[in-house]
Amino acid sequence: MELLSLSTVYDAKKVLSKIARKTVLIHCKYLSDTNNIYLKSENLQLTGSFKLRGAYYKISKLSPEQKQKGVIACSAGNHAQGVALASRENNIKATIFIPATAPISKVEATRSYGADIRLIDGVYDDAYQEAVKFQKETDGVFIHPFDDIDVIAGQGTIALEILEQLDNIDAVVVPIGGGGLISGVAAVIKQIKPDCKVYGVQAAGADSMFESIKVHQRTELAHVNTFADGTAVKLPGELTYNFCEKYVDEIVTVTEDEIASAVLALMEKQKLVSEGAGALSVAACMFNKIPLQNKNIVCLVSGGNIDVNILSRVINRALLKTGRLCNMTIELLDKPGQLRDVSTIIAQYGANVIRVRHNQGGEGTDINDCYLKISMETRNFEHFETIKNALIEKGYNILSTKQ
Amino acid sequence: MELLSLSTVYDAKKVLSKIARKTVLIHCKYLSDTNNIYLKSENLQLTGSFKLRGAYYKISKLSPEQKQKGVIACSAGNHAQGVALASRENNIKATIFIPATAPISKVEATRSYGADIRLIDGVYDDAYQEAVKFQKETDGVFIHPFDDIDVIAGQGTIALEILEQLDNIDAVVVPIGGGGLISGVAAVIKQIKPDCKVYGVQAAGADSMFESIKVHQRTELAHVNTFADGTAVKLPGELTYNFCEKYVDEIVTVTEDEIASAVLALMEKQKLVSEGAGALSVAACMFNKIPLQNKNIVCLVSGGNIDVNILSRVINRALLKTGRLCNMTIELLDKPGQLRDVSTIIAQYGANVIRVRHNQGGEGTDINDCYLKISMETRNFEHFETIKNALIEKGYNILSTKQ
Repeated sequence: MELLSLSTVYDAKKVLSKIARKTVLIHCKYLSDTNNIYLKSENLQLTGSFKLRGAYYKISKLSPEQKQKGVIACSAGNHAQGVALASRENNIKATIFIPATAPISKVEATRSYGADIRLIDGVYDDAYQEAVKFQKETDGVFIHPFDDIDVIAGQGTIALEILEQLDNIDAVVVPIGGGGLISGVAAVIKQIKPDCKVYGVQAAGADSMFESIKVHQRTELAHVNTFADGTAVKLPGELTYNFCEKYVDEIVTVTEDEIASAVLALMEKQKLVSEGAGALSVAACMFNKIPLQNKNIVCLVSGGNIDVNILSRVINRALLKTGRLCNMTIELLDKPGQLRDVSTIIAQYGANVIRVRHNQGGEGTDINDCYLKISMETRNFEHFETIKNALIEKGYNILSTKQ
Repeated sequence: MELLSLSTVYDAKKVLSKIARKTVLIHCKYLSDTNNIYLKSENLQLTGSFKLRGAYYKISKLSPEQKQKGVIACSAGNHAQGVALASRENNIKATIFIPATAPISKVEATRSYGADIRLIDGVYDDAYQEAVKFQKETDGVFIHPFDDIDVIAGQGTIALEILEQLDNIDAVVVPIGGGGLISGVAAVIKQIKPDCKVYGVQAAGADSMFESIKVHQRTELAHVNTFADGTAVKLPGELTYNFCEKYVDEIVTVTEDEIASAVLALMEKQKLVSEGAGALSVAACMFNKIPLQNKNIVCLVSGGNIDVNILSRVINRALLKTGRLCNMTIELLDKPGQLRDVSTIIAQYGANVIRVRHNQGGEGTDINDCYLKISMETRNFEHFETIKNALIEKGYNILSTKQ
């Protein structure tokens, strides 16, 4: 027996046609050497992620009495925004519990959709406790972020769109957090086009579904650690675990560096902003975690709500990794004008100095503390080496470099 | 008499259907309080900008003899990539002259499309001289980036798509560099839907078309200065100047800070990466430069090829401006454990320290040089003030702050 009937998903599609975007499927020639990649761009969905679909469909199915009492959610991220917008569009009250440590940008986005925000000191679990307490007091409906059949049906509408948008499709690659997204997508794909593979991707630092499927039972992780915060779930859902067992061909994991590279590649090559969780599928394809060659693969880019603080760090890391940002520590000689001389050499080779720390020594400093620390923008590693060699030729002693 | 026949643009559309994407038109609820904004996302075009359209159509119309001799272009940016890809798709040789100071990412992108790259020491003018010399030697066809009727016709296909994608459209807002894009778009709009307004936008630091239209003759700027480098053109084209005089309703200008804010808004709210030039139209709408209210306005986002170095700086500037990145200099007291104490207070309030400079003084330093300089990520200005006040309460003297 199927775990989700297609008729429910078609109903969700009809309901969602009023609000959700049919996000564009983008063909990417340059993200993978081994396969032909298409991106299903749910980062361009309203609220910046797919979560709107499940939340809206769930809320639309509530009884008038339930709607009257309002809905409750606990989330620091995409689910909060999905529930907030879905509630406003259904003219019902949403109360959303958010840990006070959440990025202000996500809090403000949720607030902008008209939800009543309760910022709770502490972490997610603290906010969750408050949400449960509030639910008991008000008898409102708690909207689960993933382990709910209507939420899963809403997410499944993405698969209907993919099948409409591309005929010749060999595999769909989907990020997994709690598992709601892949449950809906896989159930639809396997019922309509069973030959099409469905792969799940988790961050290695938050691989609860990967571990659960491996040992064939739901397994709770002691802790999760990933910048793909949208997927940082310790324990998979009951429903979603069963969906993955039944419908998903394989689950693979990717490292934090692989996720960061995928976020950067989506920005530089596709001009798309994705969050860590959103880029998991692309990371899996870029780093050949999917056991396919010369196939048409749809990567589901699930969301784009990345805090610019994080994005800035991802970019800086990538700049260092690709030789476009370099640090150099130069020993200072006992004569004047050295800052000027070093600056002249660097300028001559077209690098752009962005930070200088000039320490000419003093009380409490020994000879090793007399240095010039320079951060500069370079074109690539060769460019940096050219500058380094020019400095060495002029008699400078490079104490260390960091690229 | 019209300056461009619609039949030429329809021909270009047919030719381009083989290669160019019909880029999606995205409805944005949150970019403007005064108007209803749609984005024509040419940053999602192949090569990351609209330039492919004009270059491809121009090249497709060359004679077999011309194709045999190959094409030549001079550009550090989007035109280079457009010509390179268009040439490869037409199986002809492209030689592209690029100033050596161009960002390596753009050079590499152009090279990846198969063009023969000539890196020329110096600036754009030096590369241009070499391109002209090479053209004389080889008798190849020099592809002008904007002042060419076929190039203009190619860009005009964007307007045909916009008119197909949205019925009820009151205005189109278009960035201007040399003027090729707005010439094609305006000529089509005014012939098919003359009531629709067409506005041009330039960076205030590179406003050659704005100045030219003001005095009713082509005017060359002494210098241009903008991070919207795709529009840094000193002298408008002859053709494009005439198109603007005839078809464009008004040209407005925006500041560098307004452009940066637009780039950030497109990233945070729309999950789209745009370059400075690409965000000009959005900047004009966000900062109410367009004299309309409650209208349906299409902003043409012309490209997304922004160097990540620049993007990183745009983000950092915006973080400082919005209180999410803060610097603080604290006077050090004459007792041990102060770094620990200050760190504890900051951590307690949930800010994230990202850089510390601890200067305990020494030879050659006076009392004012004994300080602790801290950069931290905060949630907003209020959050920063809370931390600052907590430090003051504990007896610390804040020497300066920078937000």
